[in-house]
Amino acid sequence: ISMRNGVRCGALEVKNTKPSLSLGRKFELDDVIEAQQFDREILGNIFEVAREMEKVEKNSPGSQILRGYLMATLFYEPSTRTRLSFESAMKRLGGEVLTTENAREFSSAAKGETLEDSIRTVEGYSDIIVMRHFESGAARRAAATAEIPVINAGDGPGQHPTQALLDVYTIDREIGKLDGIKVALVGDLANGRTVRSLAYLLAKYQDVKIYFVSPEVVKMKDDIKDYLTSQGVEWEESADLMEVAAKCDVVYQTRIQRERFGERIDLYEEARGKYIVDKGVLNVMQKHAVVMHPLPRLDEITVDVDGDPRAAYFRQAKNGLYIRMALLKLLLVGW
Amino acid sequence: ISMRNGVRCGALEVKNTKPSLSLGRKFELDDVIEAQQFDREILGNIFEVAREMEKVEKNSPGSQILRGYLMATLFYEPSTRTRLSFESAMKRLGGEVLTTENAREFSSAAKGETLEDSIRTVEGYSDIIVMRHFESGAARRAAATAEIPVINAGDGPGQHPTQALLDVYTIDREIGKLDGIKVALVGDLANGRTVRSLAYLLAKYQDVKIYFVSPEVVKMKDDIKDYLTSQGVEWEESADLMEVAAKCDVVYQTRIQRERFGERIDLYEEARGKYIVDKGVLNVMQKHAVVMHPLPRLDEITVDVDGDPRAAYFRQAKNGLYIRMALLKLLLVGW
Amino acid sequence: ISMRNGVRCGALEVKNTKPSLSLGRKFELDDVIEAQQFDREILGNIFEVAREMEKVEKNSPGSQILRGYLMATLFYEPSTRTRLSFESAMKRLGGEVLTTENAREFSSAAKGETLEDSIRTVEGYSDIIVMRHFESGAARRAAATAEIPVINAGDGPGQHPTQALLDVYTIDREIGKLDGIKVALVGDLANGRTVRSLAYLLAKYQDVKIYFVSPEVVKMKDDIKDYLTSQGVEWEESADLMEVAAKCDVVYQTRIQRERFGERIDLYEEARGKYIVDKGVLNVMQKHAVVMHPLPRLDEITVDVDGDPRAAYFRQAKNGLYIRMALLKLLLVGW
Repeated sequence: ISMRNGVRCGALEVKNTKPSLSLGRKFELDDVIEAQQFDREILGNIFEVAREMEKVEKNSPGSQILRGYLMATLFYEPSTRTRLSFESAMKRLGGEVLTTENAREFSSAAKGETLEDSIRTVEGYSDIIVMRHFESGAARRAAATAEIPVINAGDGPGQHPTQALLDVYTIDREIGKLDGIKVALVGDLANGRTVRSLAYLLAKYQDVKIYFVSPEVVKMKDDIKDYLTSQGVEWEESADLMEVAAKCDVVYQTRIQRERFGERIDLYEEARGKYIVDKGVLNVMQKHAVVMHPLPRLDEITVDVDGDPRAAYFRQAKNGLYIRMALLKLLLVGW
Repeated sequence: ISMRNGVRCGALEVKNTKPSLSLGRKFELDDVIEAQQFDREILGNIFEVAREMEKVEKNSPGSQILRGYLMATLFYEPSTRTRLSFESAMKRLGGEVLTTENAREFSSAAKGETLEDSIRTVEGYSDIIVMRHFESGAARRAAATAEIPVINAGDGPGQHPTQALLDVYTIDREIGKLDGIKVALVGDLANGRTVRSLAYLLAKYQDVKIYFVSPEVVKMKDDIKDYLTSQGVEWEESADLMEVAAKCDVVYQTRIQRERFGERIDLYEEARGKYIVDKGVLNVMQKHAVVMHPLPRLDEITVDVDGDPRAAYFRQAKNGLYIRMALLKLLLVGW
Repeated sequence: ISMRNGVRCGALEVKNTKPSLSLGRKFELDDVIEAQQFDREILGNIFEVAREMEKVEKNSPGSQILRGYLMATLFYEPSTRTRLSFESAMKRLGGEVLTTENAREFSSAAKGETLEDSIRTVEGYSDIIVMRHFESGAARRAAATAEIPVINAGDGPGQHPTQALLDVYTIDREIGKLDGIKVALVGDLANGRTVRSLAYLLAKYQDVKIYFVSPEVVKMKDDIKDYLTSQGVEWEESADLMEVAAKCDVVYQTRIQRERFGERIDLYEEARGKYIVDKGVLNVMQKHAVVMHPLPRLDEITVDVDGDPRAAYFRQAKNGLYIRMALLKLLLVGW
């Protein structure tokens, strides 16, 4: 298995399985490590498979395409939400799961095993590894070691590529297009890897306009702004959520992460109350526009918004299931 | 889905599945929230299905009736015993399970997600939610939110309805009837939700007589006594376990819960040693009578009782499996 | 179920299942409690089945021989590595798993349930129990209680028989024979139950020679030396790893366990650096010889050894899967 431009490529070994939804052999996918590994065409292909996954019915042949496959969820820190989503995806396709949420025990200070050794052991027991880790770069190290596919389910402050994929997929599903859209990224733009990855992926589409709406203390960092500029993506900072919301196709709200403020509870409280998506915001939004959120939310979206058809965040969470089903299928049995 | 008299009712959506043990459409069951939601007829119907479940054999068609269904065990506090019982039930019927015992992480203080939001996410990944929670009323809130069925596997000091059902089922299986029985409730009657629910359910049957045998500090509270009286159920308090045991069909022993006594270890020790079911008690019991216990036990039943055929507590635990199989079947594929 | 010479024997109840790989009825296996329960013939038979297990392919009939069976992994202390290996083995054969890594909750100080009661409950939910416990002798107590098979997955400082089996199996697979082999046991020989069990099992073969190479503070205890002598097995202590490595078929390296040294970090550091398997050691080893290690390793084998075909430790870990598949098959459906 070789590395090309940060994307691991190579012959995908397919044994004993005929993909039931053969779309032709478009490209080979070995690991899912970071949002940047996908180009526009690959994203489109993955989304096509995800659409197929939405139609998989209980006990249909499509629900058995991963029968006999074993996924290991190797979580070095707990993330019940992400774990359940992956495990549901695997089981919805007939596959089986080995679970661990205390994988730190593998590499405990007392025992000191390397991540590489742990991976070599676990790959003997499973067909694919879904890993969550507390260190940036851990997923890449795991993928470089494993001979079976690895999916990054979040590595520290680094990447969480399946979240980025499901966000873009949700915009495509809800708005019907990705070119020419206007997206407001709201809330904690400094610390949220979600909005950073999303901005990165949106740059792959034409005529996208991005609005950053955030409290001063957590505004979007320059690296992303510079990247967008270099890609010819229009962006703008604004302090007026209402004005922006009225113009956008997507209002992507995020949680202000208290844990980032340390002792400065005052700053947290100030930042937290600043931009709330409520009925008032909904009222200025266009009819076709949607509100998204990576969840969990506190009160940055008020609960009276939930009943509006434009509240897309629970559909967005559900889309995570379809994206993960698609990736598991692609990594294990190919197109 | 509408609420009627505390019982959620509505059209049960059944897809792609034909119940293999069709008993006719007797009633629709949407959620299992509290013991009080069941009347005598419904209990009888559930018990009938549980009897069928006792006969399900490995790899028989009956063992596959929940094939393709996914149960999420969403436990906000660990309860290995209850969780394993539900998961065994699901798997014995061919279903699959998503497990979490650290569901508090969903709603951690740091993150602060509401139960309602967590439920909306998890229902996207599964077909039924079995929830254990530390707060009374949590199961009802979950059921009001979810569009998929919810089973209460215990919510704080509140309800634990599947335990209540398995207790009544066990009496029916062991004694052969529920009308006209005499039941001694022994031990911690003040704090045990088990005995409270059991008393409540027994009131639905004819000519039941209940004896309360407990240390003074943990005697049965007035609300249950008043309820029994209002339902015309005879009850009596007694300090003489031997005399009561000689008369009863069922001696239902419970553990004195040390955690309820705080610093008063002296009171705990006094209460704990007061009513022990031992060989002496067995000797005065009738031949057809049984000893029950919700488990775990400490020494309130001596181990030399275990070998007696009237020791029903491990059969009782096993009956929990059949009751849960029955409920999962009824909630997922109907009668 | 009766006990004979420490091996539990009896009629194995086989229901609804035809073993797909019938080798004839050679012996009956009820529980796996300790390495000593196996004689040379039984080991050979288990290894024969393990070889069959290596050939089981995804979705082949052989991959379904435990369909409908439920294994409970009842772990009173976490051991992710061992647990995943057993769970993978069960699922590779079509069986299902109930998992718990917090089984202490069953018997928490607060609740105080006996191991025997816990076992009686869990056996109602499953077909086989794989137990890890912190107390020596716990597995034997569990097996004496349970009417279903019990496999000891490690009980405190006591036994870990499946590790011992996979070690001997690995030597057989790598070297091609067990009689006449020369084995160096290196590292912590005082505390490692692995090397003690291995020495015990090797004594069952002809003309075996064992070399003990360890720092003075953790040398092999007299009981094993005396046992080897009584069985006519040659053994020798040596301080020269290079000289020994040049002569041996197997260099079995182990981790110096820091936790055994308490405050004496100086002694630990001294012991730890003393015998390292590195390229230099590899260079003197024979071409057919192998390096083994029970894992996890720290730096007692340098990572530059990993690429050498004689580095057998990850294959050894994988063999654990086949041995466990074999034992699950034998205990549940017989030969």
